Amino acid sequence: MAVSDFEALCPYRLVLEHVTSRWGVLVLIELLERPHRFSELRRAIGAYGGRGVSEKMLTQTLQTLERDGLVHREARPVIPPRVDYSLTGLGREAAEQVRALAEWTRHRMDDVEQARRAYDEARAAS
Amino acid sequence: MAVSDFEALCPYRLVLEHVTSRWGVLVLIELLERPHRFSELRRAIGAYGGRGVSEKMLTQTLQTLERDGLVHREARPVIPPRVDYSLTGLGREAAEQVRALAEWTRHRMDDVEQARRAYDEARAAS
Repeated sequence: MAVSDFEALCPYRLVLEHVTSRWGVLVLIELLERPHRFSELRRAIGAYGGRGVSEKMLTQTLQTLERDGLVHREARPVIPPRVDYSLTGLGREAAEQVRALAEWTRHRMDDVEQARRAYDEARAAS
Repeated sequence: MAVSDFEALCPYRLVLEHVTSRWGVLVLIELLERPHRFSELRRAIGAYGGRGVSEKMLTQTLQTLERDGLVHREARPVIPPRVDYSLTGLGREAAEQVRALAEWTRHRMDDVEQARRAYDEARAAS
């Protein structure tokens, strides 16, 4: 099934996937702080731990969010050329919800880890 | 990089990925209504449009959410055997936030579609 078919059948599910994608989440949360240049954004995302994001993946993530109207890209006519990424009003709304969900997850990690241990022990015992 | 390394480096990011995964979102939203049997859940998710979920993917999604302590699986000792899935207290907290985000997305689809048209037209013109 082509992406366009999926988009036609259930358009909002696809937007939800964009804002909750691995890098989409981090881009939105980071841009909620302030606008960033591409290289700044890439560094900031790497700082969350885990493997950083490749240039290609970050470019693709930003283009998807820009096309959805969540991120604004502004090429500044300076030397050397400079491109700033910021949230639109719509993007800010999405980012605030995504950040709340990320914070809930972080806050509840102890409960999740406890549940995982219980689950793994029950499996090992059976 | 193995999933376990990723889990160690940035544990909460992985939980966020579980609750915002394509099928994770729909399972949580659907179970927020009431407990479901496996087959009911599979039918309900298909009703959201798009291609439905395979038995294998739904099983995997439920196991992941159960291990994270978000979903409770209860095998009832009846004939024929019956297994019910419901949300735990932790799962309910996650599901409410995920549903709010899904509702925001649905509510804002017109804005997203307008942004996409503008983006595609600007690309076509350049």
